[in-house]
Amino acid sequence: MRAAVMRNLKIVTDDVPEPVPGPGEVLVKTLACGICGSDLHALKHAKQFVENAPGGMGMDIGRDVVMGHEFCAEILDYGPQTARTHRVGTRVCSFPMLMRNGAPVTVGYSNDVPGGYAERMVLMEGLLLPVPNGLATEHAALTEPMAVGLHAVEMAKLGGDDVPLVIGCGPIGLAVISALKTLDLRPIIAADYSPMRRKLAEQLGADIVLDPAKTSPYASWREVAEVTRSGERGPVNLLTGTPELRPGVFFECVGVPGVIDQMLVGAARGCRFVIVGVCMEPDQIRPLLGITNEINMQFVLGYTVDEFARTLSLISEGKLVADPLITGKVGVGGVAGAFRDLGTPESHAKIIVEPWRD
Amino acid sequence: MRAAVMRNLKIVTDDVPEPVPGPGEVLVKTLACGICGSDLHALKHAKQFVENAPGGMGMDIGRDVVMGHEFCAEILDYGPQTARTHRVGTRVCSFPMLMRNGAPVTVGYSNDVPGGYAERMVLMEGLLLPVPNGLATEHAALTEPMAVGLHAVEMAKLGGDDVPLVIGCGPIGLAVISALKTLDLRPIIAADYSPMRRKLAEQLGADIVLDPAKTSPYASWREVAEVTRSGERGPVNLLTGTPELRPGVFFECVGVPGVIDQMLVGAARGCRFVIVGVCMEPDQIRPLLGITNEINMQFVLGYTVDEFARTLSLISEGKLVADPLITGKVGVGGVAGAFRDLGTPESHAKIIVEPWRD
Repeated sequence: MRAAVMRNLKIVTDDVPEPVPGPGEVLVKTLACGICGSDLHALKHAKQFVENAPGGMGMDIGRDVVMGHEFCAEILDYGPQTARTHRVGTRVCSFPMLMRNGAPVTVGYSNDVPGGYAERMVLMEGLLLPVPNGLATEHAALTEPMAVGLHAVEMAKLGGDDVPLVIGCGPIGLAVISALKTLDLRPIIAADYSPMRRKLAEQLGADIVLDPAKTSPYASWREVAEVTRSGERGPVNLLTGTPELRPGVFFECVGVPGVIDQMLVGAARGCRFVIVGVCMEPDQIRPLLGITNEINMQFVLGYTVDEFARTLSLISEGKLVADPLITGKVGVGGVAGAFRDLGTPESHAKIIVEPWRD
Repeated sequence: MRAAVMRNLKIVTDDVPEPVPGPGEVLVKTLACGICGSDLHALKHAKQFVENAPGGMGMDIGRDVVMGHEFCAEILDYGPQTARTHRVGTRVCSFPMLMRNGAPVTVGYSNDVPGGYAERMVLMEGLLLPVPNGLATEHAALTEPMAVGLHAVEMAKLGGDDVPLVIGCGPIGLAVISALKTLDLRPIIAADYSPMRRKLAEQLGADIVLDPAKTSPYASWREVAEVTRSGERGPVNLLTGTPELRPGVFFECVGVPGVIDQMLVGAARGCRFVIVGVCMEPDQIRPLLGITNEINMQFVLGYTVDEFARTLSLISEGKLVADPLITGKVGVGGVAGAFRDLGTPESHAKIIVEPWRD
């Protein structure tokens, strides 16, 4: 079958062996698969990725890898020891994981099973989620990246007085904005240097969207935080003489060195950080800044099986808006070019691979 | 009056002006005052301290400062606009703060009011806490450093399954151990390179005390964490094939660069860090390590007025053990030498200044 293959640190189009469903597994046709920033990272920093990234461990970059973990697929056939729960032809999403020899394998970061940049995949029957009628296949394929946002927002444990601020509006930041939008917690403040990403942030429901080159995101948060939800000024703190601020909850969705320290500089007492962006390099922070304001930092990763399922439901109910994210579609032969295009934030947000195309 | 004065980045003994109690203030005789690691730091890194340390801001190091904020004192006289709540002669502790011109002043880090390394001080009547009968003055003086430990433990929100691990057994780590001991949450694991500090950790109630040069504190935590409180092995995680670990709650009580990253390396999924040690320099961490295990980091500072009062009560009830901390006593003339002695962990833990001596 045709696939976009990571081989010798390049993406090439080639024929790869057909996957064979093992016990409890299902053979599926890939209908749509989003390209994730982690895939770009895996290609560019393969060695580091394999050594450090949670999904990439155990992958041998000396051998072929078919990436792609943000997929919607169609059931073609069942392997042995399956209950045939859904009829052949059903569209499904799945938590991108298989068990092989008692150990977990990440679909999309494995030498043994292909990911969604191939015409066909194998998935675990027990993890399949049927796509609700009426939901477009390409929107169902956004379940995985949107689940990352939902998980980050769940871990933030937001309360009525919190003011959310999203730093970085790439796909992860945008997923966080969408998830925030499912709560009644306006205004949502979002910041990105890219005009295209700012436009997407608005479309997904951010209320205050700013360019950090012109306006400090932290000044913007403070302005909102000085006034209570009912429009009154907060009580004045007797020690500092300034109004009590509503707590800022800052979502780090950039993942490059220096951002956490900038957040520490911008924060005030009692702010909470949720670190969603994956910074692969060492980073420098000033712990004293964290201490002075008693900052809480919650690092987050991925999503639970339950959050994944809820994300698909929320998308199908129209409560989690995802579709503005899709800015392009390619066949298997277009994956290498799409990887190049995604390197510049102005050209694209999410490109969907449709491996059945030409 | 006699005082140990910070002048030209040295500690000298000299006469300083008598403090005069302002409205709402009380004149007290200093009975005992502990020397804090922050005072050593303020002397050694004065410029950095004034610019960055929460208590040091606004201090002019070009002018005299009488430090000392861990005190027990005796009421001598009342200033104007006071209610004379306690009779003259009452022993008192106080949250080390005054209001002057509507702004807070830290007692012990101010050019305007002397701290506890002087024969007399002024304090706010409203913050005075009488020392319960029978509690030794020098033990009452430990309220301030012990409150730092109580606050850190409160902020950790420890639950029944958590396994506390204290990294560093200087005065702050020891205060954390004492506060942990007030909860029924054994075992308490503690680590320090210094034999003397390890001995104190045991005396204050740590159950497992280790030398990181010989035993990894994180391996020690894992060993405890693999077994439930009732002595059974935790359930095996289906994805990883290893037993679920009871969450480690790691208290960073060292405050030097590199420790947080070591904690990130040693942690497992769901561990929480409480950062109590004050690291004044920039520090390097690998955010990816935090992300992989969804670590939560709570930075903490100081204590609340309520926690301060509760600490004094707990000490007087014998529930918070503090007295093994005291390893020496000096008069005002001995402060400079005590600062030198405290620079080496083997010689001392807490030295108490008694300004009325000699």
